[in-house]
This record gives sequence, C-alpha cells and structure tokens, in this order.
Amino acid sequence: MTATYNGPQCPLPLATNTTVLLGHGSGGKMTADLLKQFFLPAFANPALDLLNDQAVLTTQGVRLAFTTDSFVVSPLFFPGGDIGRLAVHGTINDLAMCGAIPLVLSGAFILEEGFPLTDLQRITDSMAQACRDTGVALVTGDTKVVEKGKGDGVFITTSGIGLVAHDLTISADQAQPGDHILVSGPIGDHGIAVLSAREGLAFETTLESDTAPLHTLVQAMLEVSREIHCLRDPTRGGLATTLNELVVSSQVGMKIDEQAIPVREQVRGACEMLGLDPLYVACEGRLVAIVAERDAHAVLSRMRAHPLGSDARRIGRVVSEHPGTLAMRTVLGSERVVEVLSGAQLPRIC
Amino acid sequence: MTATYNGPQCPLPLATNTTVLLGHGSGGKMTADLLKQFFLPAFANPALDLLNDQAVLTTQGVRLAFTTDSFVVSPLFFPGGDIGRLAVHGTINDLAMCGAIPLVLSGAFILEEGFPLTDLQRITDSMAQACRDTGVALVTGDTKVVEKGKGDGVFITTSGIGLVAHDLTISADQAQPGDHILVSGPIGDHGIAVLSAREGLAFETTLESDTAPLHTLVQAMLEVSREIHCLRDPTRGGLATTLNELVVSSQVGMKIDEQAIPVREQVRGACEMLGLDPLYVACEGRLVAIVAERDAHAVLSRMRAHPLGSDARRIGRVVSEHPGTLAMRTVLGSERVVEVLSGAQLPRIC
Repeated sequence: MTATYNGPQCPLPLATNTTVLLGHGSGGKMTADLLKQFFLPAFANPALDLLNDQAVLTTQGVRLAFTTDSFVVSPLFFPGGDIGRLAVHGTINDLAMCGAIPLVLSGAFILEEGFPLTDLQRITDSMAQACRDTGVALVTGDTKVVEKGKGDGVFITTSGIGLVAHDLTISADQAQPGDHILVSGPIGDHGIAVLSAREGLAFETTLESDTAPLHTLVQAMLEVSREIHCLRDPTRGGLATTLNELVVSSQVGMKIDEQAIPVREQVRGACEMLGLDPLYVACEGRLVAIVAERDAHAVLSRMRAHPLGSDARRIGRVVSEHPGTLAMRTVLGSERVVEVLSGAQLPRIC
Repeated sequence: MTATYNGPQCPLPLATNTTVLLGHGSGGKMTADLLKQFFLPAFANPALDLLNDQAVLTTQGVRLAFTTDSFVVSPLFFPGGDIGRLAVHGTINDLAMCGAIPLVLSGAFILEEGFPLTDLQRITDSMAQACRDTGVALVTGDTKVVEKGKGDGVFITTSGIGLVAHDLTISADQAQPGDHILVSGPIGDHGIAVLSAREGLAFETTLESDTAPLHTLVQAMLEVSREIHCLRDPTRGGLATTLNELVVSSQVGMKIDEQAIPVREQVRGACEMLGLDPLYVACEGRLVAIVAERDAHAVLSRMRAHPLGSDARRIGRVVSEHPGTLAMRTVLGSERVVEVLSGAQLPRIC
C-alpha cells in the first residue's frame, strides 16, 4: 500500500481557489479546509467544533444524538446496495458512533426532472426495507424537484435522532496513549464495489458493498467495556483519513501495522489496477474503535462474535509520541507517515 | 383572484407518467400523488401518515418534534433573503407549527463544482446570522460536492429538533367545525420577491420576502389559548394548498372570505401581470391558525401585538358542510370552490 494520489484535483491551498472543486467533497484535506474556512467560524459551538459525525445534546435530562448526511453516490445502484439503503445505514451508523440507539430518521429527496419513477420505486422500497430490518422508522420527510440538468437523478439527505443511554463520552478527542486500535472487518469493499459499477470504469468483480447498520455491533461492544474512547465508521476518505482525524482531535500519535489491516484480495487487486490505496477507500459497514488496553481483548472477542465483526482485527495502538501523526509499519518492515490526501481519490462514493 | 393554472406541467394522473416532472415538486396535487404512490406506502407509520410538517415523538417521557426540508430555491439570493436564511427559518417554522420550541438544527450542503466561494461565504454568514438571531444553534452538518452540471450552485437540507413543552395536539387532523381561521399577515410576498429576482422575469418591485422565524409568535399565541387546533406555514402551494390539506386531514369544510385575505397591492399587481393567483403563492414568514371560536379573539389580539403578526386577520371558519372542500366567498359576492393546483405555478420557490 503506497499513497498514490495523482488525481485531477488542484491541491492548492483553499485561499488561492475561488470556486468549489470536486476535491472539496473528498473527505480529505480540502474538505477539512472548507469546514475550517467557511462552516466552523460561521456556526461555532461546542457540539459542532468537536467535528464528530453526530452532535450529542442533553434536553430535559435526556441525552440525544443528532446527525445528518447528504448522499450523492454515483451510480445510484451498485453491487450490494443503492443510494437509499446507503442513506439509512449511513445515518444509523453516525448515531451508533457515539454509542446511541437510533430512534427515528428523516429523509429529504431532491429529484431531477426526468428521473424514472421505476428507479424511485426501487430506491424507496430499498430504504423502507433497510428501515424495517433495523427497526428504525422514517417519520418525516420532504421532496423537491429541480429542472433536468440541475441535479443528478436523486440526492437523499437523511438525518437521525438517537438515544444515548449510557453516560460515556465517545468522541474523536478521547483517544489516549496505550489504547488499542480495532477495525471491525476488511476495508475498502464499498468504494471498490461502487467503482466497479461506474460507467467507463467497469471491471469484473464479485465484490459487494459492505453497507450495513452497525448499531447492534456497537451495543454489543458497550456491554463488555466502559472504556471505548472513540468510534468511527471509515467512510469517505477511508481508514487513513479517519485515523488522521482522531490523532488530530485527541492530540496523540498512532502506530498501525500494515500487515494487520484486513483487505480482501479483490479490493487489493482492483486498487493495484486503478492506482488507488485501500487505506483511503471508503467502507460503509465497518467501524474503527479506540479502546483502553485492558478492555481491548474483551471488546475484540465480542466484535468477532457478532456477524458484522467476525473479521475484526487489532491493527495498532495509540502512542504519546508524534502527536497529530499516523505512522504505519509497512509490510516491508519500514515505517512511514500516512497522511491525509488533499483532494478526491474517489469522488461521489457516498 | 381566479385560478389561472395554465403552466407547462402535464396534469395527467401520475400512473401515466414514467418520470419525475417539475410539477411533482409543486406542493400541489402532483406532489401529494407522489407521496401517496411512493413514500407513504413504503415508510408507513403513524407519525409520517399524519402528513404534518414535523413528526412528534416521545422518548424517555420527553416530547420532541423532528423535521427536515431541502431547499433548492432559484435564484439563491433574492430581495429580503437567500437560501441560507430561508433554510434556517423554514426548519424553525416547521418545528414551531406543532408548538415546539426549536432546540438545534443540522445543515447538509450539496455543492456544485465551480460554485463561487464568495457566494458560499455569503450564504454561511447569512445562515449563521439567522441562527444567532433566533438563538438556535446548528450543531451538526455535512458537505458533499457534485460535478459541474450535476447540481445548481448549492442545495441545503436543514433538519431540526424541537421541544414540545405542552401537552396539546396541534395537527392537521384537529380542525373542528366552528373553529376560526386566522392568518398572521399578507400572503405571497416570498413567492413574488423570488420571482422578481429570477432571470428573464425581472419586474420592478420594492417587495421583500417575508421569510421570518415564527416560533416566538407561536409561543405567544400558546400563552393565551389551549385550543389552537392546527398551525401551518403556507409555503410551497400557498394559502389555498395549505387550507386544502387541512380540510382533507380533518374531514371538515372551510369557508373563507376573499375580501378578508390580506394581499399587498404589489403582490396583487405582480400576480395580475404574471397570470398568477396570490392564493397559491408561497409565504415563508406567515402562519395559518385554526382556533376554537371562544379563543379566536384572544389569539388574534395576541398575534397583532407581536411584530410578526401585526397584520393578522380572521379570514374564515371551519364548517361541517362539504367535508374535504375549501369554499371562498369572492369579492363579487359569489361562492366558489378553491381547489389544489395539479402542478407547479412557481417551481423552485423554496
């Protein structure tokens, strides 16, 4: 695995750009710059400033989690899923990543004039099935229509409310030196599955997206440990970007072991062919957990006993050295820094 | 005021269409058909089925309101507001329309490649100002980027959580014969202000959008009455569509008096010029209240004492005759049925 960013996006500092670039949607450095320049200064508040995938608020003594995500994946249908299923799972997972129990979802649809109603039917059916499978109801919604050429079929924004039924603080800034880094399964399946369906990039694979709702896995993990410090689903930007966000938020270092990171042969092969690094390829049904050393074994065992964590692995640990930096021991035995990519390795992956 | 729908949208029944049409985003009959054919059967649950602008749920004994809306208004900037301000007010208002106190918002941005960063700055600044003015924080968000030609500058989806601090049921199905129909101010300002800024439709007016957050007005009304049965902000589809939704949900009739409906001269003039009916033109800072007869005077007085209700009027009453039908006594003294338009009088107005 080597960093292979040679994409079309201009990696210049934001200040020298005057318009939005595709790289601003990458989940990488340009996305972070956009947040820092426009959104965080405008809306500054303690919940938003934590840059977690959800806000946790207390109202009338009840702790709630609240999250939102827009889905613009292209193509809309891909092996193992579609935009609707992805939207339900994505929002459930963002709630789960603070240990919340998902309560309800909302769905807002921006439809493009000319979008086939049969495709809309497939998507709403798939979303509804995902809601039934997870027991989480979509209770409110909206539909808008834009002229042909002003959208792209359908964009879906799901938001969700969850109940935080514990008193822990599971947050990107809670990683501590000594903690172990666990990943719930092989990385990159979702990104490669979407790419395999993308026009002009078709290649043969039986790979399916890993899209899945992770809330029951998280609840199982919480049953065996009160020292789960961070939880993240490594979506846009992949594992490398997620861990980089954690080292910055927690002001710690991390050392991971390339050999220990689970990657399917099909994903590795596709990445080699396309010049991609699996470390940056999105998952939609995996999580990273940062867990106190003394609980790491118990949490890992519990993850492996769950269908969505059967291939879970310990991939490294949190260190006090080089705060803000993610280091990796490569399969060749050398050590290198794993940085955040500037722009988009894979645009519109979720 | 006469119904003047002669727009470009095909008013055929949905079953004969195979693709999404602009009229499906109108807020009128085609939007209702889309909901009935695709969304309600798929996601059926008691909260969604009520077709209110928000869902009310109880968790751990706390009553919460939850809402979402996508904003695709064109142009992004218009007299009296912009898409960001509209998004904040729209979500606050959807929470307020069940009497909830808005707690927090989320914001999800779908940006088009090439969108000027100066425009993004104007919009985030404006949203942030609207948040500060209302004391409601935007606590979580998302940004996605789509390729040039696959979006239209920026689409914003805001969701919100509110606290329902009373034990009333304010809902579209609660109107009762004898209730009075109140409107908080002149209708149609928003729609005409947006149209005046639209390319190719420029006409001279000093009119500004009425976009405003209505939560304090609603709280004031709730202080003087426990018999406010329905609250709605007549946005997309305007006053006529909103009242039609209420007569259907509550299975009652309504009689309104054209003479009593406040419409500014500028709105009336622009509508005449453009062949529109003000009854169907969107407001973004007005509300309709259905109130028990014995409280109607007190509620109206309290509305008039509030800056956002100073031009409030009683425009009609709920009747037991002709359930599901909205009737209007015209300025000429005759009576006519006011129906829901099939498609879009004004597309992309919010």
